[in-house]
Amino acid sequence: MKRNSSKHGTRSPIQNATFDLNEFLASSTAAVNDALDDFLPSATTRPTTIHRAMRYSLFAGGKRIRPALCLAAAAACGGTQAGALPLACAVECIHTYSLIHDDLPAMDNDDYRRGKLTNHKVFGEGIAILAGDALLTQAFEIAAQAAKPPRFSHLDMILELARASGSLHLIAGQVADLEGEGRKLSQEQLRYIHERKTSALLSCSVRLGGMSANCSAAHLQALTTFGRNVGLAFQVIDDILDVTQTSAQLGKTAGKDTRAKKATYPAIVGLAESRRIAERLTRKAFDALKPFRGRAPALEALAQHLLGRKS
Amino acid sequence: MKRNSSKHGTRSPIQNATFDLNEFLASSTAAVNDALDDFLPSATTRPTTIHRAMRYSLFAGGKRIRPALCLAAAAACGGTQAGALPLACAVECIHTYSLIHDDLPAMDNDDYRRGKLTNHKVFGEGIAILAGDALLTQAFEIAAQAAKPPRFSHLDMILELARASGSLHLIAGQVADLEGEGRKLSQEQLRYIHERKTSALLSCSVRLGGMSANCSAAHLQALTTFGRNVGLAFQVIDDILDVTQTSAQLGKTAGKDTRAKKATYPAIVGLAESRRIAERLTRKAFDALKPFRGRAPALEALAQHLLGRKS
Repeated sequence: MKRNSSKHGTRSPIQNATFDLNEFLASSTAAVNDALDDFLPSATTRPTTIHRAMRYSLFAGGKRIRPALCLAAAAACGGTQAGALPLACAVECIHTYSLIHDDLPAMDNDDYRRGKLTNHKVFGEGIAILAGDALLTQAFEIAAQAAKPPRFSHLDMILELARASGSLHLIAGQVADLEGEGRKLSQEQLRYIHERKTSALLSCSVRLGGMSANCSAAHLQALTTFGRNVGLAFQVIDDILDVTQTSAQLGKTAGKDTRAKKATYPAIVGLAESRRIAERLTRKAFDALKPFRGRAPALEALAQHLLGRKS
Repeated sequence: MKRNSSKHGTRSPIQNATFDLNEFLASSTAAVNDALDDFLPSATTRPTTIHRAMRYSLFAGGKRIRPALCLAAAAACGGTQAGALPLACAVECIHTYSLIHDDLPAMDNDDYRRGKLTNHKVFGEGIAILAGDALLTQAFEIAAQAAKPPRFSHLDMILELARASGSLHLIAGQVADLEGEGRKLSQEQLRYIHERKTSALLSCSVRLGGMSANCSAAHLQALTTFGRNVGLAFQVIDDILDVTQTSAQLGKTAGKDTRAKKATYPAIVGLAESRRIAERLTRKAFDALKPFRGRAPALEALAQHLLGRKS
């Protein structure tokens, strides 16, 4: 928590205009990286290949957006960083496993991710599949170590994580994405994919953060609406960046969606309308935070930051 | 539980000689199949591909050995079938996911399993990877629905499942197996693989069964030793069957280990010594059951059955 204390004693944390997002992101990323390093077996633990492969992707420079959302939601509900950290780390393990498997030749067949070779390009397909499996399993081991808040059971949190990651959400999105390749999709069908592939886990991140802070039912509902809208906006922006940015700017192959004949928001509704949709979703996310009466500056700043991001 | 009641009113369930293993297996398999069918999204749930793929492998005629061990351990500790069922189903989901991923071209590259085409031969590699991921995730969702016994927390049970399935056990075994192909392994190295790839999840099955029945520490220790020895015996017998049985008898490709240049007990110590090792391990498993004073007839019968199996 020491990293979270403000260097500017006179600054009020509830005034969004003065909220230092960079400081919040630096602090939460450092805490998450330290905790992940502690939770995972070391790279010298036998069999070393699997632990090196797990760590390779987990520490490949991910932006830790989901953990930041989790910690920000906990803060908005009056919780501590320490209380939310295991859940933030669990979500990041799920996210990383999904990227490793998505990049496989049988899926998106990607050679680069975050400017580095993808897991299977370094360790081979067999180990990459197992590294994904191991990170998915590790997520539940880590989540099971979170402290129990009075209002929620451990089961609530395990179920939350399992459902967001399961065949009705995260995996459903990946399946629909795989099956949609080369087909002409409607905006509704694309929204179905994005809501499951991206929005579900982002929403889960903020919900788990709130739960770790023993949030009220009203706050949990607010976080859910916030997470869903920010999550969908996040993916619409991803679609926009794929057509407007270079590979070097993105750290992954740009223009890939178009070449893979994947449906994107810009392809269906155009670039300008896609931007309007992302802005509208972000506004909805902001509106959802009303029950926090200005005491969710980190969530507000994150939503704004995600809308304006360039990679 | 009604299926578990004996048709022979005069039979004492603590007399192993009269214990009807076939009836126990039929009853536990029926209960597990029904429960799995309930826990899993239906084959018509969207996206249907993933649910059809998950169900294809989950209902491909597996012998349900791990669930049977789980239910038998619960019975030995005075628990109910209903209490152990979610954990028995969770373990079977983990087992099935591991088979789907093991069969992939990047791993063992197998076309047949239990006499049927492997998952990726029917649904393609991408969906097979996702079906494995989804079953692994589903396992935790199911396990999280088990009732909490007084002596153990839900976390104890989630951690038990996650650890047995993680990078230090089930996945460690698969990694070592993959890396050992074509190399000359010592008996010690082969034992390392078998203990992780097979023994860990079998041991977890009986431990979870015991925990669901609120077992004592002494009984949990006994079940652990039983599970480890039965698990290792199980894999040694698998090695023996691979060289002595035909593909038709096994329902999967026979002689595969030899052709894949995989180390096996018969290759390292010979067929006769392999049989002696399997018998010795089974005896150790029996000895471990002493604290149950004859009240673990299903576990005894299962150990004996696994030693003598032909497929």
